Parts: sequence; C-alpha cells; structure tokens
Amino acid sequence: MDRFELISRLKQSSSEKIVLLVLDGLGGLPRNNKTELETARIPNLDKLAETSETGMMVPILHGITPGSGPGHLSLFGYDPLRYIIGRGILSALGVKFPVRQGDLAARVNFATIDEHGNVTDRRAGRIKDETNRKMCELLREIEIDGVQFFIETEKEHRAALIFRGKEFSDQLSETDPQRTGVAPLSVRPLDDREATQATASMLNDFLQKVKEKLKAEHPANMILLRGWALHTAIPTFEEIFGLNACAIAGYPMYRGLASLVGMDVVEVTSGVEPQFEKLAELWGKYDFYFVHVKYTDSAGEDGNFERKVSVIEEVDKNIGKILDLKPDVLAITADHSTPAEYKAHSWHPVPLLLKSRWSRHSHGIRFGETDLSRGTLGIINSLDLMPLVMAHSGRLAKFGA
Amino acid sequence: MDRFELISRLKQSSSEKIVLLVLDGLGGLPRNNKTELETARIPNLDKLAETSETGMMVPILHGITPGSGPGHLSLFGYDPLRYIIGRGILSALGVKFPVRQGDLAARVNFATIDEHGNVTDRRAGRIKDETNRKMCELLREIEIDGVQFFIETEKEHRAALIFRGKEFSDQLSETDPQRTGVAPLSVRPLDDREATQATASMLNDFLQKVKEKLKAEHPANMILLRGWALHTAIPTFEEIFGLNACAIAGYPMYRGLASLVGMDVVEVTSGVEPQFEKLAELWGKYDFYFVHVKYTDSAGEDGNFERKVSVIEEVDKNIGKILDLKPDVLAITADHSTPAEYKAHSWHPVPLLLKSRWSRHSHGIRFGETDLSRGTLGIINSLDLMPLVMAHSGRLAKFGA
Repeated sequence: MDRFELISRLKQSSSEKIVLLVLDGLGGLPRNNKTELETARIPNLDKLAETSETGMMVPILHGITPGSGPGHLSLFGYDPLRYIIGRGILSALGVKFPVRQGDLAARVNFATIDEHGNVTDRRAGRIKDETNRKMCELLREIEIDGVQFFIETEKEHRAALIFRGKEFSDQLSETDPQRTGVAPLSVRPLDDREATQATASMLNDFLQKVKEKLKAEHPANMILLRGWALHTAIPTFEEIFGLNACAIAGYPMYRGLASLVGMDVVEVTSGVEPQFEKLAELWGKYDFYFVHVKYTDSAGEDGNFERKVSVIEEVDKNIGKILDLKPDVLAITADHSTPAEYKAHSWHPVPLLLKSRWSRHSHGIRFGETDLSRGTLGIINSLDLMPLVMAHSGRLAKFGA
Repeated sequence: MDRFELISRLKQSSSEKIVLLVLDGLGGLPRNNKTELETARIPNLDKLAETSETGMMVPILHGITPGSGPGHLSLFGYDPLRYIIGRGILSALGVKFPVRQGDLAARVNFATIDEHGNVTDRRAGRIKDETNRKMCELLREIEIDGVQFFIETEKEHRAALIFRGKEFSDQLSETDPQRTGVAPLSVRPLDDREATQATASMLNDFLQKVKEKLKAEHPANMILLRGWALHTAIPTFEEIFGLNACAIAGYPMYRGLASLVGMDVVEVTSGVEPQFEKLAELWGKYDFYFVHVKYTDSAGEDGNFERKVSVIEEVDKNIGKILDLKPDVLAITADHSTPAEYKAHSWHPVPLLLKSRWSRHSHGIRFGETDLSRGTLGIINSLDLMPLVMAHSGRLAKFGA
C-alpha cells in the first residue's frame, strides 16, 4: 500500500483549519557562525517553537537541490520523484492557461537576432509587456497542420507556449544557445520514438515560420524555447487529502503549482502584510491555506544576507496576524534552502515548526537550523508534512485495529 | 533485496537473551509542559537511559495512528503496510482459535432486536459470558452448504466467528448499523469479484438462519458482524529471525498477535509484578521475551494522566526484576502513543531505550519524549528495532565482504 492509498483510506472530514506558511528558500548557511534565521531577531517565532513540534525537513533526498516545482510538490504531499512537472507546464499554469492532459508546453524568451541569424540579446532588451502582447498577437497568425497552439504573455520577454492536438513527446533539446553570437539551436529529438521525431520536426517548421513572421520586428525578432514538458494530469489535493484549499501567493510559478494540484488561487498583492491580511479576509472559507512568501528566496538568490534577515524579521513581526486567527494547525517551513552565502537554491534541510493543540513541546529549541535538527520530529522528509498536518487536524483515522 | 531477505541471509545463532518490554501507548502529550513519562518519577529508567542507546520511533509513518495490530507487527519487524491483519482475525486469535490460511473471520456482537427487527441494544445489555456461551451453542446447530463455521465466546456480548471451506472474500460491508432504531444491515459485496458476491450471499443466508435460531431468546436475539478479515499466513518470527520467542501478555489481542507470528503464548495474570515474575520464572527457556504491559494504554484511553504516570512509576519500581536477570539485550518501548490528553491512540513517535553491552551511551538524556528525540539513535522507524535487537545480541553477521 503506498502513501496516497493509505491516506485516502484513512482520511476523514473535520472542520479544523490549516495554515501552511512557506517562506521560500528559508534555510540558510552561517555567516559569522549564524545562519540568516539564527541571526534574525524573531521573538514571536522562537516563543512559538517552544510549544510546537519542531524539526528539519529534507525536501527530496539528502544532497538533492530542489527547483521550486519539486520543492512545493513535496510540501503538498506529492512524491516529486513520481510527479515530474516540467518548467513549460509551470509557465503555462503561471499565466492561468488551462492545461489539458497531453498538452506540450515550453517557456518562451523573446530574443534579438542579427542579419546573420545570430542571437545578440537573449532577452530582447527585456521588452515591455505591451510589446510582448503585440508579438504574441502576430505569432498567433501562424498555422500548423493538425496542431493547435497557444502563446501567452508572461512578463517582459517571457511567454508560455502550448501545443495541443497530436501525440507529442517532450524528449526534446532546447533552442536557447545560452550565449550570444550564435544562432538559436534547432530542436533535436532526444530519443528514437516516432512521436519524438515527429514533434521535433513539427517544432522546427514552426520556428521557421516564427522567424519569417517576426522578420520585420525589432528587438523581439525571434523566440528561444526551453523547458519542454508534456502535461500528465495528477490527482488533486482535494481528491487525496479531502481538503478544500486556497493559495495566497503573488508569483506566477507558485500560483501555477497551486493551481496544478487544484487549489483555488486568489488575487493578492505580493508582500508579507498584504498576504497575511488576505488570509484573514478569506478566513473560514477554506480548510487549507497555502501562504507563500517569496522574498526570503529572492534575497538569498541575490546573496543579500541582511535583506533575507530582515524579511524573516518582517514575518516574525506580522505572525500575530496569523496567530490571531487561531488556526487549528499552523506549519511554518520552506520548499528548499536558498542560503545567501550560496546565492542559489541548495540541498540543505529546511526548518519546520508545527503547532496544534496536539503538538509535543520543544523545550529549549529556538527557531533556527541548528536547534531545530534536535527538535521533537528530528529530521524528516518534506513528504511527511501533509500526513502530519492531516493527523494534527483530526483528519486521519486509526490504521488497523 | 528486502529487509527480511537481508536479515535471513545474515542471521546467525547465539545464546544471548533478549527482552522486549512494551509499555502499550507509552508516548504522551504535555500537560503543564510535561508528558506523562516526563512527569513520572522514574530514577531507575532515567539511570538506565544514561548508558543505553536512546531514541524515538515512528510506528508506521509520520502522521499515521496505528491500531494495536500494525503497532505490534512493526515492533516485531513486520512491515505493517505489507502484512495487514484484520480485526476479525485478531478476535479469532484472541480466543485461541487456530486460524488457517483462507479462513474468513469477523467480530460478533450479540444484540437485541425488537419485534420489527430493529436494533434496540447493540450489546444485548452486555450479557454474561455464560449466556454468550449458551447462544454460541445454539448457533452451532446451523448448517451451511459446503462451509464449516466456528463461533467462540470472547467476553460479555462479544464473540469470534470463523468460516472455512470455500474461496472467500473479505471485501464486505459490516452489518452493525452503529445506532439503534434501525434493522441490522445486510452484507454488501464491496467489489465485483465472484468470490465476493458468493461470500456476501452465503453470509446473508447465514444471518437469516441466525435470526430464526435466536427468535425465542432475549436479550441476545441477533448478532452484528464487523471487521471482516481473510487470513493469509505470514512467515513466523522464528523463520525470519531464528528466535525462539514467548509472549508474556495478559490481554487477548496481544496474545493473538504474538500467536499470529508463532510466539509461544504463556498463561499469566495481567499486571506489572506478576508479568515480570513470570519472566523470571521462564528465564533461560527462550531467546526472546515479549512482555506486554497494558495499563499505560488503558489509562491514556481513559484520559487519566495521573494513573498513566503511576503505571509508569510502577514499571520503574519493578524494573530491577528484569535487570536482575541480566538480559543481554533489553528494549523498552511502545507500540504507539496514547496521550491522556488525547484519550486515544495517536501518531506521535514513541520512546525507545535499547541496552546491551554494545550500546552507546546517551549522556544527559532522561527517559522522556523531548530528551529521547535527541538520543543516540535519533528518530527511527519501529521496523528498525528488530534488526538492532538482532545486532546487539550478536545475531547478525556482516553484510558483504
């Protein structure tokens, strides 16, 4: 019996409310012997930790650095080694495109090429959204035999591209050469299957038409394609856990991920305060609230230790807005670490605090990486979080007599 | 290679003696910041912990609350997600019925129905064991074509019912309506297989005959059936671990579980002192002694924090009776948590202490949940206990050259 079977057999209903607060990239590395989280003054979180279950979570496997997709899927209880969501699908979901089973998606960068066809700017000077929309309009005039396609503006030079109507493959090479001075690459099939060969050939024809269509434009006179992904439907969060869930997330990727598992994605301004206030506004309407704070990760990616510390302090200062709602279960954690010292996602385990009226207490544990690894839960896998959250909210019946 | 294959390949003989002391439902939740175990004065266990390996164990998976069956199977080294033992089989084992592969078993409640056939008491006024035995005698007069059946008194209104002789299915609905004022339910097949349809139909005929047979009786004039379970033989404890084992347990369920894995089940009066004395009496006759203390769990189920504390203190006071025997390996742990605050089995990890001459020491660790989660073993799965116990008793050879 696998985890999903076990949970769907044991799950039961409850009116208890769950908040999952994800501080993206929260986990850090020490500078002057203390991580970002250990440096931050967070009296409220430290106090909360004392009466909560605490621990650290390994997002995928030890040593594996998760992208945002696998990191969140694991938090949502989906084995990220079983449910592989390609970047292209995430982009499509991010622009609210209603992806269907069998769709093939890719990320688009509008780019500039010179008269020899060589890339001079991989981002077409970060064109305005308005220009992007105009280019998409133009491209929509292209026709492909037996295939429908959709191209949707994301932001600046980025768009999402979706093909529908044939049996596709996503075992394809990308066309972004990753440097300037050379021509965009053609799409190469990465395996021998007929569908792969046919898809590559269809795409190369399509790219030829794109080049023609954009010939007279500037600076966005070509597109580069990355992140090929075929969409396979996955069971929804509600099907698996019986939870009516919403996502309070400002960024397209996380909105896309939440929508992928069937959460309601609400309109909200990105930021700790507006997002926490949106939570209060929606309180009572859902069983499960996924609140995603992006700025811990952005600061980490930028290598800005101090800014990451101050985002964490801002969360601490505002945490009362969540506690005042008296959620039955509150989990505070991350999808992965983004240590400012490392300036990128990393494989290190992430902090976890889990508070309910059934949580054991973590005497003498502060909310920081070193302490948390000695917490009541020790070091678990992120996949364990959803079963724990279900149990703490009274939603899992006893297994066996 | 799975765990059992690995162990049976590496196992070797030894004369060392192992005691597994299970304090049922030992794990707790804090009241005034301390769990039952942390509240109890247990100088002997605390002292023992200092020179033992210590840790916490997750019985099944994080968040999953085990019934007694899966909880014990896991302690005995059997993956409870692979070996599923139904309640009906446990009942049959509890009355010492020699269950065979292919038998179908259910739990029986004698009940009272009125002249319209509606249930007025789901427990028939908790009839005396004597009355129960008389009713069973009566029911044994029923005949079913091609099928043998056995009904055995358990206690008060409870009995065990076993069918033998055809290919049965246990994918069946229960007949207990779980409330009064309505008729007992009929048995519905829960899948489309022929065996399931045939079993349901045989059982409904049987229930019709039961109703006829008990028509003139009162208050036990009907039976309600729950916990359908088909018995699949599982490898014995001795086959897997090469251990000649006995169970010193007073309660039917645990005696049944021990017997299921092939342990000798000895006669004993329930209680810390008599059970520990029985251990001393049997000392030397077996390799492995499973001693099961029930009252920690009962106190937890009753929500009686103080009584649970005092059972734990009673164990501490008597632990010398075990230590005096100088077992080569002593493991003290639980099958699951039953926090008095929760009044039921829970999913929380359980305490573990493992003492042998090869155990590492747990400096500064007291025998309580918060401390133990920082012990030398950290937080492991209950399935890891048997391999550890085997290793500590010199029974596992090196793996590979």
